Formats: sequence, C-alpha cells, structure tokens
Amino acid sequence: MTFRSTPESPIDAISRGVPLFQRVAIIGLGLIGGSVGLACRARRLAKEVRGADHDPGHRAQAIALGCVGEAFEDSAAAIDGADLVVLAIPVGEIPRVIQGIAAHLPPGAVVTDVGSVKGSIAATMERLLPGGKAVPGHPIAGRELSGPMAASAELFVGAKCILTPIPTTDPVALERVRGLWTAIGADVLEMSPERHDEIFAAVSHLPHIVAYALMGTIVDLSEDGQDLHEFAAGGLKDFTRVAMSHPLMWRDICLANRQQILEMIRRFQSALSRLMSMISAEDGEGLYRQFARARTVREAVGRVKGAGNRTRSDE
Amino acid sequence: MTFRSTPESPIDAISRGVPLFQRVAIIGLGLIGGSVGLACRARRLAKEVRGADHDPGHRAQAIALGCVGEAFEDSAAAIDGADLVVLAIPVGEIPRVIQGIAAHLPPGAVVTDVGSVKGSIAATMERLLPGGKAVPGHPIAGRELSGPMAASAELFVGAKCILTPIPTTDPVALERVRGLWTAIGADVLEMSPERHDEIFAAVSHLPHIVAYALMGTIVDLSEDGQDLHEFAAGGLKDFTRVAMSHPLMWRDICLANRQQILEMIRRFQSALSRLMSMISAEDGEGLYRQFARARTVREAVGRVKGAGNRTRSDE
Repeated sequence: MTFRSTPESPIDAISRGVPLFQRVAIIGLGLIGGSVGLACRARRLAKEVRGADHDPGHRAQAIALGCVGEAFEDSAAAIDGADLVVLAIPVGEIPRVIQGIAAHLPPGAVVTDVGSVKGSIAATMERLLPGGKAVPGHPIAGRELSGPMAASAELFVGAKCILTPIPTTDPVALERVRGLWTAIGADVLEMSPERHDEIFAAVSHLPHIVAYALMGTIVDLSEDGQDLHEFAAGGLKDFTRVAMSHPLMWRDICLANRQQILEMIRRFQSALSRLMSMISAEDGEGLYRQFARARTVREAVGRVKGAGNRTRSDE
Repeated sequence: MTFRSTPESPIDAISRGVPLFQRVAIIGLGLIGGSVGLACRARRLAKEVRGADHDPGHRAQAIALGCVGEAFEDSAAAIDGADLVVLAIPVGEIPRVIQGIAAHLPPGAVVTDVGSVKGSIAATMERLLPGGKAVPGHPIAGRELSGPMAASAELFVGAKCILTPIPTTDPVALERVRGLWTAIGADVLEMSPERHDEIFAAVSHLPHIVAYALMGTIVDLSEDGQDLHEFAAGGLKDFTRVAMSHPLMWRDICLANRQQILEMIRRFQSALSRLMSMISAEDGEGLYRQFARARTVREAVGRVKGAGNRTRSDE
C-alpha cells in the first residue's frame, strides 16, 4: 500500500454525498466552461458553481441553462471564496487572466485549466501561482458548436482528460482535480507538459494545420476563378470539418506550441515530398507501399477502445 | 426546339416500360460495378445484365446478391451480344481491358467507364475505340466498404455523375449513357476530361494524398517508438477515414493524373509554407486571418444542395 495524503479519496467522498468543493469558479463560460458547470451541478460535486465571462450574452445563457448559479464580468470577483478555479478560456488568454487573479486567490484554492497546450501554461502557472495549488489539465472533448448553448453535462463522459502536474504541484491538489474529472465521467491520465505537447502536436495540431493549408489552397483556387464548391463533397469534406474549428483557438495553439508544431510540419513535409517524388517518377510500387502503410494507423486507432465514438473537433 | 437524333429520350422510353439496353455487360464486379448491376436490374433498365471479374468470390457473390444474372471470368465472353459495356475496374487496368475487348465488341455497343481520372482514359478510348461509341464517365459515389457485398441499388441516388465525351463521341451514345445514370438516380453533368481532372485533383486527389502523407508521418513517429494511437481520436480521425481508401485505386489515380496532382501539391506546399512562416514569426494576426478564411470553404460547401449527405471516400 502507498501512503495517501488524503484521508479518503474524492470519489469515496462523493459516493457518501459529500461535495468535492465548496465553491467552484469557472472563468470562461463557453462550451467547455459551461459543460464543466453543468456536469458539476448535475452531479452535486460542489455546493456552489459560479462563473465569469466578458460576454454578457454568455453570462445570461450560462445562468439560464443552469451552467452556473451566478455569473460575473470580473474574474477576480468570481473567484472570491472559491476553493477551485477552472480556467476555461483560450490558451492565449490564460497568462493574462492568471496575472489578474493571482493576487485575489483565496488561500488554498486549487487552480486548473482546460487548455490544449500545456508547456507554456505550466510554465506560467509555475511562475505566477506558487504554493502548489496549480494543476494544468486538458480534457480531450469538444464539439463543432461552441458557446454555452452547446454545453452538456455529459460532454466529458468517456473522454480522456490529461493532467500535467508541475514540480510544485501539491499531491492533494492533484488528487482533487483528478476527482473532479473522474466524477464527471472522464478517464484521467497523467504525463509531463512536454510529453503532452509532443503527442498533441502530432495527433491534433498538425492535422488541423494541414487541414487549414488545404482549405487555403482551395480558397486560393476559388479566388483564381475556379468554382470547386459543387464538387467538394468528397475527400475534402472531412477536412472542412476540421478546418471549422475556432480560428482564435488555433492561432493561440500555434503560438503556444510553436516549436513542436514546426517540427511536426517539417516531418509532414518530408513525407509529402517522398510521395511527390514517387508520383513524379511514376513509382507505382512505392506509392502502393506508402498508401497501404497508412491504413495501419486507422486499424490501430480502431483497436483503441472508445476511440472515435464522439464528434470532437477542438482538441 | 433542337433536333434530336433519338426518336424519344431514354427516360421517356423507360417510363413506357421499354428497357434502355438489351444486354449490359459490367466488367469488374466490385462496389461500383455491383451497384450498377443492382440498380439496372431493380429498375428494369436492361433485358439482361451480365458481368465479368477475375475473382471467383466476387463472381459468386455478385450472382448470389442479384447484381448480375451471369458472371464470366473472361471479359471478352461477357461482352458477347452486349449493347452497353460498363468498365468498373481500377483506372490502371482500363487500357489493358479495352485492348482485350476492342476486337470482340459487338457493332454498335456503347462503352463507358467509372474511373476517377478521365484524361488518360479518354485518350485511350479515343485511340482504341473508334466509331463514336466511347463515353468516359465518373459517378461520384463510394463507400468505405468495397466489393460486391457492399453494393446497393441506391448507391447513385442523388450522386453526381460526370460524363466527359471525347471529340468522336456519338451524341446518341452519349444520350444513352446519360439515360442510364439519370434512371439510376444520378445527377448527370458534362465537361471536358481535362476540366474534370483539374477539379478532382483539387477536391479529391490532393486531400487524399495529404491524408496519406499525414498518416505516413504518424506511422513514422510510431516506428520511432511513439505510441500515439491512444490519442488519435481527434483531428486525426477524419484523416484516417480518407486514408482508408484503396491503396491500389489511389496508386492508379496518382499515376493517371500525375501532372495535375503534382501542380496541386505544389500549391498546397506554398499554403503550408506560408502558415509555417507565420507560426515561426509568431504572426498571430496572419494566422487568424488564414484560419478564418478557411471556414469560408465549409460555408460554401454547406450552401451547395445535397453536398455532404453521404459517406463517400473513393472519389
């Protein structure tokens, strides 16, 4: 048996009807923030759930839909008395918001986030949030729609949630954040922020950038006077879905995970150049081999339990 | 009124219960060939439908499922007495098969195909099939599954079918092939083989090659010891579907539409390099503009009636 710093696990506490948190403050009431609120309230994980959002429409919708009990314009006001703060805002805004709330954080309040890039956020948290209460996280969930209207209490059921503790993270804080995600249905994994960013540069960031480049090519052709839309139902359609993700979110991801993404694009360019050379040289055998090899990814993905059961575009 | 070389249109004839063809011979009893057979028989468009396939399993299944009444190993035997021959075989096999059947074609038999590349096939037909009976075609339909077991009489309902007549194509032959596709539910368009190949290099061939290059990158990383499959449910998933298309079919398409595809890859590479430079230079504004611009493709595709209602991977 290993020593446990908590007298009982968060999940045990929930099963006895004890809320995990007294007051959860969600900064950012979009799809993810709204869904965290709904999920916490539906499962009675907190005595109180409040939120903050700059957009008055989001605040009104989040209250009307029951994502939060109260909604503030000011993040510092929202975190008053909170023992958990969830930052559900675009990656690029996280440093500024942490800077804004750091001085107002109640002692002991745990801070987590849902950003798709972890290295830069972990570094910011390490610098601005001493005391061990910072637990960087990334729930792998999303929908094509955004905003609180698209929120669902079940969004995270069966989804993976990756926590990337930093050297200063207090084990109790980590355990509490793990308890939250587990309780709202996610499958929690732990890894380093660097490993997270390396994996997601490959499986998520690169595919999105490639889809954007492909859409850019088609838009360029259209601007050259080619009307291709009528024929775009085929291979292109799958890419248009990926490229519908939020431009702002992807701008932030590109900037925050710059080095890993550039490295992945370089690897991709080599693979594409190889195919180009084969096409150019009419190397049918080589092309066949490369195309057949690509199928192994799909087959491997198919073997991973639960993969591909949901629509997730913003990961 | 325009002069009509047919006394009545094929569709008028069908509506009076007159079959369009006496004997249809389908060379290649896979998904598309099998579906053409089922669709013709379900709608009584031909007095008789027969087929040919090298694979004895395909022949047995096509007969058992009712795709054809009779199935031959030898294409020349299958076309005996046919007034329509449909070549439903991989693009790369078409020249060889045309060479094999040309001497055995009944006089007056119309020949069409379903290949995804039209320029090279049109050239082969022009050379080997004099007499005006050749009508190159491309129904835009497919499924993730292949083989006669996946065939459906409704596969072409609502799908586009592009006919690319060559200078020698007899208007009556063209009208009869148009009648066939219209009768089985397709929306028939006409354009030159060159225009077809230019459009499909952009909307179908390029996306498939990009998906293959992306899968190749992921496979390379896996071979370097990175197990990414567990995380591949996101952006990557849409690409794995595209990359599941048949390696043989895509090898043939790459070889047959080589120049147009290389040109499209070059355009794509420029678009990707532009994004790379922006990421490298931390040009957030430029990235945002490019990402926002990509959404216009999806919006335009959404406006085209019927686009994206079906699962089509092999176009």
